[in-house]
Amino acid sequence: MSLKLNLDIQKFLSEAWQRQPRLIRGAFTQFKDLVEPEILAGLALEEGVDSRVIQNDDGKWHVSHGPFESYEEFGEHGWTLLVQSVNEWIPEVQQLIAPFRFLPDWRIDDVMISFATENGGVGPHLDQYDVFIIQGGGTRHWQVGERINNATEFCPHPDLKQLKDSFEPIIDAVLQPGDMLYIPAGCPHNGVALEPSLNYSVGFRAPNTAELAAAVADSLSQLEVPLQRYRDAEATSYGKPFAVSAAQLDHVREFLLSSLAQTDLNHAMLLVMSQSKRPLPQAEGLLQAEELAQYIVEEPTMLLVRTPGARILIGPNNVLYANGEAWPLTSNTQAFAEAIAQLWEDQPLTALAPLLQSQESMLLC
Amino acid sequence: MSLKLNLDIQKFLSEAWQRQPRLIRGAFTQFKDLVEPEILAGLALEEGVDSRVIQNDDGKWHVSHGPFESYEEFGEHGWTLLVQSVNEWIPEVQQLIAPFRFLPDWRIDDVMISFATENGGVGPHLDQYDVFIIQGGGTRHWQVGERINNATEFCPHPDLKQLKDSFEPIIDAVLQPGDMLYIPAGCPHNGVALEPSLNYSVGFRAPNTAELAAAVADSLSQLEVPLQRYRDAEATSYGKPFAVSAAQLDHVREFLLSSLAQTDLNHAMLLVMSQSKRPLPQAEGLLQAEELAQYIVEEPTMLLVRTPGARILIGPNNVLYANGEAWPLTSNTQAFAEAIAQLWEDQPLTALAPLLQSQESMLLC
Ligand SMILES: O=C(O)CCC(=O)C(=O)O
Ligand SMILES: O=C(O)CCC(=O)C(=O)O
Ligand SMILES: [Co+2]
Ligand SMILES: [Co+2]
Repeated sequence: MSLKLNLDIQKFLSEAWQRQPRLIRGAFTQFKDLVEPEILAGLALEEGVDSRVIQNDDGKWHVSHGPFESYEEFGEHGWTLLVQSVNEWIPEVQQLIAPFRFLPDWRIDDVMISFATENGGVGPHLDQYDVFIIQGGGTRHWQVGERINNATEFCPHPDLKQLKDSFEPIIDAVLQPGDMLYIPAGCPHNGVALEPSLNYSVGFRAPNTAELAAAVADSLSQLEVPLQRYRDAEATSYGKPFAVSAAQLDHVREFLLSSLAQTDLNHAMLLVMSQSKRPLPQAEGLLQAEELAQYIVEEPTMLLVRTPGARILIGPNNVLYANGEAWPLTSNTQAFAEAIAQLWEDQPLTALAPLLQSQESMLLC
Repeated sequence: MSLKLNLDIQKFLSEAWQRQPRLIRGAFTQFKDLVEPEILAGLALEEGVDSRVIQNDDGKWHVSHGPFESYEEFGEHGWTLLVQSVNEWIPEVQQLIAPFRFLPDWRIDDVMISFATENGGVGPHLDQYDVFIIQGGGTRHWQVGERINNATEFCPHPDLKQLKDSFEPIIDAVLQPGDMLYIPAGCPHNGVALEPSLNYSVGFRAPNTAELAAAVADSLSQLEVPLQRYRDAEATSYGKPFAVSAAQLDHVREFLLSSLAQTDLNHAMLLVMSQSKRPLPQAEGLLQAEELAQYIVEEPTMLLVRTPGARILIGPNNVLYANGEAWPLTSNTQAFAEAIAQLWEDQPLTALAPLLQSQESMLLC
């Protein structure tokens, strides 16, 4: 199977991305499922896997959260199992992200997979995330509407919130395996399975003002950088001690906005952008430079594997960021750092060996 | 004892507050200690009380953290016991804050009390907080220097950080009971006990950029207000997926600053300003309006007591804020809300009864 994406990327970026929904027929030629429904269902039995079953019972909706013990109670049709971050659990699924790396890595959220029985669906809703939905085995009837709200958040709740009103579809199609929908944040959508079917949602995260501000501020607090401290506006009287006047409040606000604007946020932002969605598995002992050198000689076919879910970035300051940590690069380590940041499919060590000549770059591992 | 503060407040606010250290002789006439050294020492044996002992051993400094089991090991001289937030533990000490309510309540941090043995002190240092230090029993030799850094944080560590270099004192005095120092944030200071002595530090907090931004953003996240979400700048190519360009970073920064500037932060800021320093004691069942009405009639001498450490504010939006929660006021509840926000010393219920005539205002309790 080829995971080559049939898409005019320039055209897509200039016309659709973050703006217009798109139906891309045959986005993946001869698409074959990356996971069996049984494996997906098995995954949702596990502790630590984020999953839901959504049932549609004659217009009444019901949500159950995993881990599940069995699926018997849900019956033969009218329900969907949704499993989040499957790319972190099943390496094959991580590969479905690679074709979307024409978009910035730090925006990648996860691959959610849904298995729907006949008539199953999650109902008409909208999300705060941009998503590519790829049809796997089976078929689904999808409808997508025009963007409802382009600037502000419609439903800040993390749980799926359905739309009260119906929407006017501008895309109305039955998806066949390998077809793909692109749905920008804020576009209402609704998919109903015509037969048991799998859908793969490659999601892109976009922090809102408060999420970004909180994360950047937390990161800033941990860095020992000079920061301004609040001072009260000069006054000969502050009035009643408990009364916060409009002028005092403006002064606090002004301090917040202007001191933030005067602070160098770049390093803190990059640390935040490199934070993974969920805690990454702990490394079983860090690789020492000597060990790596030894492996290159003795086990050249050994594979270098990207930890699924890791966000590995390189900033304009020539610093490597991963998992909220930073490693400054030098001219000796630059090429190796770029190679591991680019790495998506497993690579034999030999392929990277030439970049690992200097002792220094080994310290990056 | 009178806790009347002998200070020309207008002059102090226009010349000293947040700018210049001051020595105020006889700030409190016939000052009597609000706590015995033995009680203070006993408090620092308790779990949950924040305390330290700082020892000066021939120029070597040593810090131990409470709770302590005994003070024997520290010997007869050269050490200081510092106990934080004593106002929250000992009601008499809470009263020492009242004279400073010419400053905004939300800035009040706590009353720290130190008991120093002969030659005890914490060494030359500076703080990020404005503080009034009142000399209790005993005498101390204090030196205070000019503000070192008026805008940015010098030592972001929470632990006392001593100054490497000595400073030029502009105040150099032996404090007698009832004398008071005012030390603005950033002014180096050093106090050495000439004999066993107590000092009371009435401290004023001032959040730095990151602390304020994090708290306001967290508060904003919990309010279900519409918030903007990040979108990538429009581009026909984003370059290498792992490379965050300077332009992309600017775009994230610009989103953060401009969307924050476009957000109404007032309510979130007031919630944050009303958060207490430490978790307040849980109320033993909320008072019902009917119960209060009954108490007024049946037990008119019952006292209304302010929870020490509570920050009770009224915003320009006519909302009462306390402990990170909000209660909108009406013309019926306004007067009662102001009375409880103003309340510092215990008051008999009867004094407030006239304000509690309407059923509505009782709901505020
Ligand atoms: O797979 C589904 O049924 C729902 C997918 C969806 O709504 C999404 O990914 O946003
Ligand atoms: O009481 C002491 O010895 C130290 C007090 C002090 O430095 C302060 O309150 O800032
Ligand atoms: Co959706
Ligand atoms: Co100090």
